[in-house]
Amino acid sequence: MDNKRTEAATASLPVVSTRIYPRGALDILSRDEVARLKDASTGGLHDLLRRCALAVLTSGSASDDPRAAQELYPSFDIQVEQHDRGLRIELVNAPAMAFVDGELIRGVAELLFAVVRDLAWTAIELGPDESERLRTSAGLTDAVFGLLRNARILQPTEPNLVVCWGGHSIGREEYQYTKNVGYELGLRGLDICTGCGPGAMKGPMKGATIAHAKQRRRRPRYIGITEPGIIAAESPNPIVNQLVIMPDIEKRLEAFVRLGHGIIVFPGGVGTAEEILYLLGILLREENAQLPFPFILTGPTAAAPYFERIDQFIRLTLGEEAASRYEIIVADPERVAKRMAAGIRKVREYRIAQKDSFYFNWGLDIPLEYQQPFDPTHEAMAALELRHGRCPQDLAADLRRAFSGIVAGNVKEHGMRRVERHGPFRIHGDRDIMEALDDLLRAFVEQRRMKISGEYRPCYRVVA
Amino acid sequence: MDNKRTEAATASLPVVSTRIYPRGALDILSRDEVARLKDASTGGLHDLLRRCALAVLTSGSASDDPRAAQELYPSFDIQVEQHDRGLRIELVNAPAMAFVDGELIRGVAELLFAVVRDLAWTAIELGPDESERLRTSAGLTDAVFGLLRNARILQPTEPNLVVCWGGHSIGREEYQYTKNVGYELGLRGLDICTGCGPGAMKGPMKGATIAHAKQRRRRPRYIGITEPGIIAAESPNPIVNQLVIMPDIEKRLEAFVRLGHGIIVFPGGVGTAEEILYLLGILLREENAQLPFPFILTGPTAAAPYFERIDQFIRLTLGEEAASRYEIIVADPERVAKRMAAGIRKVREYRIAQKDSFYFNWGLDIPLEYQQPFDPTHEAMAALELRHGRCPQDLAADLRRAFSGIVAGNVKEHGMRRVERHGPFRIHGDRDIMEALDDLLRAFVEQRRMKISGEYRPCYRVVA
Amino acid sequence: MDNKRTEAATASLPVVSTRIYPRGALDILSRDEVARLKDASTGGLHDLLRRCALAVLTSGSASDDPRAAQELYPSFDIQVEQHDRGLRIELVNAPAMAFVDGELIRGVAELLFAVVRDLAWTAIELGPDESERLRTSAGLTDAVFGLLRNARILQPTEPNLVVCWGGHSIGREEYQYTKNVGYELGLRGLDICTGCGPGAMKGPMKGATIAHAKQRRRRPRYIGITEPGIIAAESPNPIVNQLVIMPDIEKRLEAFVRLGHGIIVFPGGVGTAEEILYLLGILLREENAQLPFPFILTGPTAAAPYFERIDQFIRLTLGEEAASRYEIIVADPERVAKRMAAGIRKVREYRIAQKDSFYFNWGLDIPLEYQQPFDPTHEAMAALELRHGRCPQDLAADLRRAFSGIVAGNVKEHGMRRVERHGPFRIHGDRDIMEALDDLLRAFVEQRRMKISGEYRPCYRVVA
Amino acid sequence: MDNKRTEAATASLPVVSTRIYPRGALDILSRDEVARLKDASTGGLHDLLRRCALAVLTSGSASDDPRAAQELYPSFDIQVEQHDRGLRIELVNAPAMAFVDGELIRGVAELLFAVVRDLAWTAIELGPDESERLRTSAGLTDAVFGLLRNARILQPTEPNLVVCWGGHSIGREEYQYTKNVGYELGLRGLDICTGCGPGAMKGPMKGATIAHAKQRRRRPRYIGITEPGIIAAESPNPIVNQLVIMPDIEKRLEAFVRLGHGIIVFPGGVGTAEEILYLLGILLREENAQLPFPFILTGPTAAAPYFERIDQFIRLTLGEEAASRYEIIVADPERVAKRMAAGIRKVREYRIAQKDSFYFNWGLDIPLEYQQPFDPTHEAMAALELRHGRCPQDLAADLRRAFSGIVAGNVKEHGMRRVERHGPFRIHGDRDIMEALDDLLRAFVEQRRMKISGEYRPCYRVVA
Repeated sequence: MDNKRTEAATASLPVVSTRIYPRGALDILSRDEVARLKDASTGGLHDLLRRCALAVLTSGSASDDPRAAQELYPSFDIQVEQHDRGLRIELVNAPAMAFVDGELIRGVAELLFAVVRDLAWTAIELGPDESERLRTSAGLTDAVFGLLRNARILQPTEPNLVVCWGGHSIGREEYQYTKNVGYELGLRGLDICTGCGPGAMKGPMKGATIAHAKQRRRRPRYIGITEPGIIAAESPNPIVNQLVIMPDIEKRLEAFVRLGHGIIVFPGGVGTAEEILYLLGILLREENAQLPFPFILTGPTAAAPYFERIDQFIRLTLGEEAASRYEIIVADPERVAKRMAAGIRKVREYRIAQKDSFYFNWGLDIPLEYQQPFDPTHEAMAALELRHGRCPQDLAADLRRAFSGIVAGNVKEHGMRRVERHGPFRIHGDRDIMEALDDLLRAFVEQRRMKISGEYRPCYRVVA
Repeated sequence: MDNKRTEAATASLPVVSTRIYPRGALDILSRDEVARLKDASTGGLHDLLRRCALAVLTSGSASDDPRAAQELYPSFDIQVEQHDRGLRIELVNAPAMAFVDGELIRGVAELLFAVVRDLAWTAIELGPDESERLRTSAGLTDAVFGLLRNARILQPTEPNLVVCWGGHSIGREEYQYTKNVGYELGLRGLDICTGCGPGAMKGPMKGATIAHAKQRRRRPRYIGITEPGIIAAESPNPIVNQLVIMPDIEKRLEAFVRLGHGIIVFPGGVGTAEEILYLLGILLREENAQLPFPFILTGPTAAAPYFERIDQFIRLTLGEEAASRYEIIVADPERVAKRMAAGIRKVREYRIAQKDSFYFNWGLDIPLEYQQPFDPTHEAMAALELRHGRCPQDLAADLRRAFSGIVAGNVKEHGMRRVERHGPFRIHGDRDIMEALDDLLRAFVEQRRMKISGEYRPCYRVVA
Repeated sequence: MDNKRTEAATASLPVVSTRIYPRGALDILSRDEVARLKDASTGGLHDLLRRCALAVLTSGSASDDPRAAQELYPSFDIQVEQHDRGLRIELVNAPAMAFVDGELIRGVAELLFAVVRDLAWTAIELGPDESERLRTSAGLTDAVFGLLRNARILQPTEPNLVVCWGGHSIGREEYQYTKNVGYELGLRGLDICTGCGPGAMKGPMKGATIAHAKQRRRRPRYIGITEPGIIAAESPNPIVNQLVIMPDIEKRLEAFVRLGHGIIVFPGGVGTAEEILYLLGILLREENAQLPFPFILTGPTAAAPYFERIDQFIRLTLGEEAASRYEIIVADPERVAKRMAAGIRKVREYRIAQKDSFYFNWGLDIPLEYQQPFDPTHEAMAALELRHGRCPQDLAADLRRAFSGIVAGNVKEHGMRRVERHGPFRIHGDRDIMEALDDLLRAFVEQRRMKISGEYRPCYRVVA
Repeated sequence: MDNKRTEAATASLPVVSTRIYPRGALDILSRDEVARLKDASTGGLHDLLRRCALAVLTSGSASDDPRAAQELYPSFDIQVEQHDRGLRIELVNAPAMAFVDGELIRGVAELLFAVVRDLAWTAIELGPDESERLRTSAGLTDAVFGLLRNARILQPTEPNLVVCWGGHSIGREEYQYTKNVGYELGLRGLDICTGCGPGAMKGPMKGATIAHAKQRRRRPRYIGITEPGIIAAESPNPIVNQLVIMPDIEKRLEAFVRLGHGIIVFPGGVGTAEEILYLLGILLREENAQLPFPFILTGPTAAAPYFERIDQFIRLTLGEEAASRYEIIVADPERVAKRMAAGIRKVREYRIAQKDSFYFNWGLDIPLEYQQPFDPTHEAMAALELRHGRCPQDLAADLRRAFSGIVAGNVKEHGMRRVERHGPFRIHGDRDIMEALDDLLRAFVEQRRMKISGEYRPCYRVVA
């Protein structure tokens, strides 16, 4: 590593410029692949690469603000250079915090190579030639599989991967609780996969680290799955030792549910609620009726109301059947871990019986509509049907969309502008469902899980 | 492994039927890949797969005759079955010699998976859609690289791979000599790559095995590179621990010269002579003038005349310059190994200086004509120009073709039939070159290195 | 592991009874060794074994009180049983906290085997037959070496072991500081060795754990060195992955200074001050004058006065020369780690130049008087000479003894009883030295680093 | 390694002088141990060390003659030097054949360290202070255990070690047969232990090497057990990767029968016959009646008469019971391996049931008389009682002694001289037993398995 430590002209923070040579998945590339990678990284991909790289290089910093890193290191740049022997990565004015005595911290370097690896794979393998394939459900699943395999995430080991979802900005007590659950999971030999940001995405890994050390677990896995839109805001926490950058939110969700042998949901904001509806919508499909899938909602005593609310809403809208797909456990980390371990044993038996692989849940049916983005236009919102009597899986899908649209209308720039311009969304639905939805959102605001400026005002009108 | 040992109805040799589940490169496949693999293995590929598998399952048997295995195990069959979890391979009436107490010998199983892996890769990746790419030199090199990478042959280790060429049916003394050379190479930490048949392809590996054991070398590599047309005749010897099946002869030759850090040629038949001309033709190109490439011809004292003949022929036709590209060492295994080790040190320095990879010789220029098959029709033979004054690299290419055609006319079925039907080939060339060629071939016949029935009669006429 | 979980009759805490079979250093014993080990464990050693085992089984519990564990688990017992195949350890009514779903936590099991291993080694190898050998300095050093080698602590790796000393009950800010220092040490690839209790013995390990994970350090070492008298009070923290139980305080100190490539002292109580005097007394010897030995006193800003006091006392009594042997760094963890890393590089060079081993500091001269216990009787205290003009190494030794005696007279039961019975110790010394000593002790009391009941009253009189 | 290659002044063979630094069991020694080792190696031990080292350095050379190496390298010397950091070994005028390009072959270096390690252990641990302990059977077994443990031969792995006994100078066909048996053993995952010379001690290892490679066995064990008296004559063959030098013949035999999970005897000379009687004498003891111990005598068809003779002799003298303890298999390597594998499975079950270790056969009762040398004086020979009616285990012991004495009287210098001086030995025994013994010896002479000069003349008289 040749490098020089300088004060960046435009910032007061110390920076380092250096060259590094990747190893791992990037170490044996053909000349052609190196050339395409270089092309991709100088073209449209470059800004994306720069942002993701910066997120990784500031990994573990406390800042909450997505744009902070960009502003703190305005002169940072990254270049992928071609050699016959392989790649060279040039870092210019990189945050000094990622270095120790001039050497890039090894774990940070690994995350950086993961960024290059995944953005390159996406650019090369999911390019315009592939658009045909990417219109089918099987083609999209294949793309998820391909990226994960290339990232060496798929390994023929025993089922033991627990996906943890939950808010990235939770309170001290809730954070401590996620650590305790991670600790109990780790004591039982379970590995952790999260969205790789702070809060409920960091706590379980941190707890598991201690437990894995006590159990002398040699190669624990702390998998972080992210996507370009959020990596900047949710910088990988320093414990992640396998990072994957999926191309978009939908593929990230598919990666979670096909990789994980069970899922735990901690308290979170509206995003977490959407994730619950996503998973429920899939599990309620007839095709998945026999599939064991441990699914636990849990939090400390103070979080009990949060899950009660959600539970009520689900029972009202999707029915008791839907509620039987998950288990709510309050303030009992040991029980969470025991139930999860027992559930995963069933997953293992089922996979063996079905001759399905341990490392990828091929058997889970995910329809195309869950694999494609939902754009909450007024037309799309008006097309929803939130009525009793629909089959639960369809209603779950529309609820998730409604949820997504309302959140956008309240807090996302493009959504708020649409509502300003065209008036509130018009949603067709039964009144009690809409009121329940409204109550839920208000509760989130009250519990400060959804941040809005000013008073909460519904951005939609119910059309009977 | 479920299996049953039976006497095949149609053969007296004991056979075993069983199911095996592959590991390694085949263990993490997508559903789509498994399906394509199954399709390929039941379609046109099936007979090829059957023949290659049988060659591997009779690995180490003494027989000389390519068709012997097919006749000895007429009811043998292999099926690739699809599971969600991956592949299952069904072996029906497989040679019992590959099993110990009903269990397939682990090394044989690995070679069998290699067969499936490489035939599948070729069928999937080099299918009709790729025909465009495979018309360019770069595209063909990429295909060679891709297959080798998929076979996990490319590893970022120190340069230490010696390719050994030579005859598969050589005398006892010559065989012992190849073992001695392998032993001296092994003592110096060098690994061996050959065409993976018997004779000069087995001896160096066997000698190296003992030396590697004495030097406590942990993971020695004995790489065998073959192709479907010859694997049946040259069944992989039992020491090979990495087997690759290239799609055709030309890609196999390219794999040898791009993988090997040096090449040793032992005495052999006409095939060996062709290989020498192939390598010389490439090394004499201006583009490769600076490239270090240790190239040693060696054999015991009795083989001295063989190399003298070849040396004279090269000097006469291609000039002294060409002769400076190789070194002839007679009856001195230790010197061979020392010179090779020294040569590889230079290769290492050069690659570092050029920033070229250690595991694949990107820097070696191989033109399209060397990557494409030569079909010795009367027209093609008449187009050759074996004259003094041509630039050596072109003359070398034509000499190799002439050689190839004449051999076909004398010993290969399709060639002999052509000559019967259309009369001798007409070759344009200077008389002294043609006479030297003729002398060389007669010497091969005398030394029993080219087997013909009856007396040798030239199958060509010189046109001045 | 056969086991049953029961509520112990005499305690409300859940307990588990089980059998375990040791691995590691205990796995290949002769019949004779097993028999001697069993004998030892049922004889006088049994109570010691029981206490140490209980300390390990409650490892990580928050309790401060040495006797707590004994009282909480009164029916706990441990038996070492003999098998031809080796050992079996029976645990009766063991704390359930050491188990996960009925299985002993693997790390705890390792610590438990370490207890048996070291107590057995001491009983077998340092028995009465050895009393002769243990009267010489070389013999005592050999005993330390033998126990450490048997515990597989001595490994021929690069010098990187930092010993951290400091108080076991320090404040939150000081504890956080020890973590930060550990983190910076870990980032630089340094391993940690402490006395394996809480506070300053735990913080550096905890910080290093995170850093080692970030640097992907595969086999970090967290060595805890304890002795039977304190293990109960300072239960090994859960991060320790190599535990050694030395036979007594003096051998434990010798193990620290011969194993460590450098020593960091955090704020602590009187014990810590004694350790500083112990190390200084050794380093000031002429025999050790050339020996590089990084020795850093450090703490957060609030701890600056603590080190100032100690520094003043050392300068007054032992002179400037003595003060040059250590460095005080306040509130700068990065600087501490950099200075330590630089110091260890010098140690490495010195060992190479002297052909001394990396894993054991044979070159350090430790005289017999430092290897033998000091019993603070009135006679022994009266024999001290705390006067200016003595050679610093002798004065340092006497200061350490004075310190030790005064502490005993103030807070240890046997010491307090002696002073009650025979009146204050009479110490010969220069008045200014005695006053400085007195001031230092008062400061400790004020800073709450020495806990006494009631007002501090000196337990000695100065005799001029 | 600093070294210089020179022509030794007094010999024509090339030699090398160099310094090497041991690893493995010798890498962490105390100062005291290094000093004692140095002392031992310069005192009486030095000549022994020199001879053993030379045997190892000429390992693999073809010579048959024990004294050859000494004469070929008269100026060879070895010195063990002391460093604080550990050992340094100086080799002066060492055989160049052990070096490649000036570097000692790694496997040879390991064997050399083993020599130093075992001679040192014997000198330090079995010195005069231990004479008391070494008078008891348990003490002697402990010594065998201690040396093997120190040599790291004892490992807690699955039972799979086959001891092979047989002649060191056997014919081509018999040698090939031992290779075939080794191959079949190796295919079944069995490791090999022999006396580490040529012939039947080398063949099984060589065959197993190929099979282990085919079965991809990662860390096969080829254990050679020798003793100072024969290492010079039976230089370790180059495949041995774990060498042990036991102090004397009796401890070597005990090591064989306690380490091996089964024993195969190939044709050999009188020494082999003695070994058979040694093992039978032990197995016939009541204490060992229940102990499973696979014991197979085998050879090619031509060797059938050899085993028939021995079988007849055993049936006549020790009875059918004794003959049931072994199995004779002629010309069927696969059957030998299958029977051995089946036998070892029973050993495994028995050890588990008895809670005996896998790595050392503690359960085998070996009485003191088998652990002590037998000196065939006229008195000792006259004390034998070779009569029907004695209990078989006692008769077996006396037969072995008779055998040993007669062999000495015929071919060993000290024995021949005794017979010359005092006349033939007088042996008390039944006439038919003595005649059978005589026939057996004559057969050995005829089959050229016992080499005598001139005609065979019995060196004893039978006393009725």
